[in-house]
Amino acid sequence: MTQDKQYAVGIDLGGTKILAAIVDQDGDIHSQGKIATQPQDGDQAVIRRIGDLVQDVWEQSGIGTDRICGIGIATAGIIDTVRQKVIYASNLNWNDVRIGDRMNERFGVPVELINDANAAAVAERTFGNARGTDDLIYVTVSTGVGAGIICGGRLITGVGDSAGEFGHISIHPEGPFCACGNRGCLENYVSGLALAKKAQALLKAGAESSLSAVGGGERDAITARDIGEAAENGDKLSIELLTQAGYFLGIGLTNLIHLFNPQVLVFGGGVIKNGRLLVEAAEQVIRERCISRMAKQASIQISTMEDTAGVLGAAGMFFQAERKKLAI
Amino acid sequence: MTQDKQYAVGIDLGGTKILAAIVDQDGDIHSQGKIATQPQDGDQAVIRRIGDLVQDVWEQSGIGTDRICGIGIATAGIIDTVRQKVIYASNLNWNDVRIGDRMNERFGVPVELINDANAAAVAERTFGNARGTDDLIYVTVSTGVGAGIICGGRLITGVGDSAGEFGHISIHPEGPFCACGNRGCLENYVSGLALAKKAQALLKAGAESSLSAVGGGERDAITARDIGEAAENGDKLSIELLTQAGYFLGIGLTNLIHLFNPQVLVFGGGVIKNGRLLVEAAEQVIRERCISRMAKQASIQISTMEDTAGVLGAAGMFFQAERKKLAI
Repeated sequence: MTQDKQYAVGIDLGGTKILAAIVDQDGDIHSQGKIATQPQDGDQAVIRRIGDLVQDVWEQSGIGTDRICGIGIATAGIIDTVRQKVIYASNLNWNDVRIGDRMNERFGVPVELINDANAAAVAERTFGNARGTDDLIYVTVSTGVGAGIICGGRLITGVGDSAGEFGHISIHPEGPFCACGNRGCLENYVSGLALAKKAQALLKAGAESSLSAVGGGERDAITARDIGEAAENGDKLSIELLTQAGYFLGIGLTNLIHLFNPQVLVFGGGVIKNGRLLVEAAEQVIRERCISRMAKQASIQISTMEDTAGVLGAAGMFFQAERKKLAI
Repeated sequence: MTQDKQYAVGIDLGGTKILAAIVDQDGDIHSQGKIATQPQDGDQAVIRRIGDLVQDVWEQSGIGTDRICGIGIATAGIIDTVRQKVIYASNLNWNDVRIGDRMNERFGVPVELINDANAAAVAERTFGNARGTDDLIYVTVSTGVGAGIICGGRLITGVGDSAGEFGHISIHPEGPFCACGNRGCLENYVSGLALAKKAQALLKAGAESSLSAVGGGERDAITARDIGEAAENGDKLSIELLTQAGYFLGIGLTNLIHLFNPQVLVFGGGVIKNGRLLVEAAEQVIRERCISRMAKQASIQISTMEDTAGVLGAAGMFFQAERKKLAI
């Protein structure tokens, strides 16, 4: 072990934008950059663009190539962490894209792919409030609902790297049909999209709310962020919507606690940022319904990382004291 | 590494009976014994009795003390696998019993405690049909419902050794209240107890069934085994009961698959033994509702171990090639 600091590149690859950062082993970001993804240009163009971005932030940081231990890429969709390729990503319109090989050819350092919710879990455990915890679950509520799960110090990935589909656990056997094939999926009760749709439907049915002024009265423009802001300003309909979604989230979380017995639950994602009420309602369900010994063992926290969780987690994979414990 | 075979003692500690066996690293049982638990005599008497049983089977096997690498104890209830004690076990009426220390004092070998569903999962992975699988879930349906979960080659125990409470995940937000504090727990739809109660209620309401002859017409005597046997003989009510329970089990299993992405699901427990229909109905729900890629990756199997799963798993903890991967 050398006393010199170690660094890694973290990339957060989304359908709209790509973030890259040079991160050190303490979680400090030394340089960073952001570009538009423009997936319509095709996978090879996007990969070239990511490469250029990495080169930029790397040069900007002034850190020697010999001190970068790897490039981590956090992305949504179905990935293969052994072959370092994206099997399928709807937001990028990618099918079977070997991004790992391409980045490795260009930069000559190890490349690791990681699911974005898993990256956030690694970030929280490596650099965040859950530092040192071996059993934590990161729950994200944004457009959709997902989870990154670490048990006994290791990421739960499953045989096909697809574990953690928390948004697609059923909480009602005859609930609404979901695009995934299941019924009563949590995502249909709790996500930003579900909240917005519910608000739109209620307004259409004549409900009174300050939301009716949003977007110049254009109902389709209402987002979960609007609902969160309206709730903070006392709008009854918005408060009711968030409380109800939180009730369902609490049911899902109780299931997670009973299955994983975590020490820490960390909440992140856009809907959480503007929807503190949602977490409060969920916490109440946990207090009421969870096996009390397990509820007491699970500390509930709000992520303080937000936008940097992806790059920190992607880079963080290279800094685990016992790395093999986390990587598959 | 010596070429000599290694052996361990496996104990299956239940509320009614205690099994002990000398097991080798290939899963062969060299000697075994069974006694009544008689928990009413108190924990110290039961521990003494277990010790005498171990001494008997050990002597019977003729294997030298230097070749026994440990004693594993599988038991229900809440256990502490670090301090090797039973925190609470309702079937034994035990509170804070340091069985590990006591057995270690008497025999001078390492002692490990393990939850009974976890033991069955270890047994299936070490000696059973799931040998070599890193991602498997053992699901038991007997009086209650539980699961032993292995991910990435490691047992999921959680921070308080309480993970895997599959029987207490909610599949209906306004379902029946459960003794655990939750509502709509899977156990209330699927367990042997739930099946028997449902049958008793339906008969009381006048339903026609060959079950009405069970126990000389004494409805309270009907068990899940009776229902399984009646279904095999074509009894419509029993077929309907098992199919319905299987439907709910399938909803719970879909949730498990979406969260853990397992390679193998192994079914065990008394209700499964006589309720093949239950598994078939559950499989149908998985085919219909599960994310298809994940459903295809999960092979469904019926345990062939049954009564020996506990002793094999308890002993099996000592034979994992990389033992630290399995023990916490």
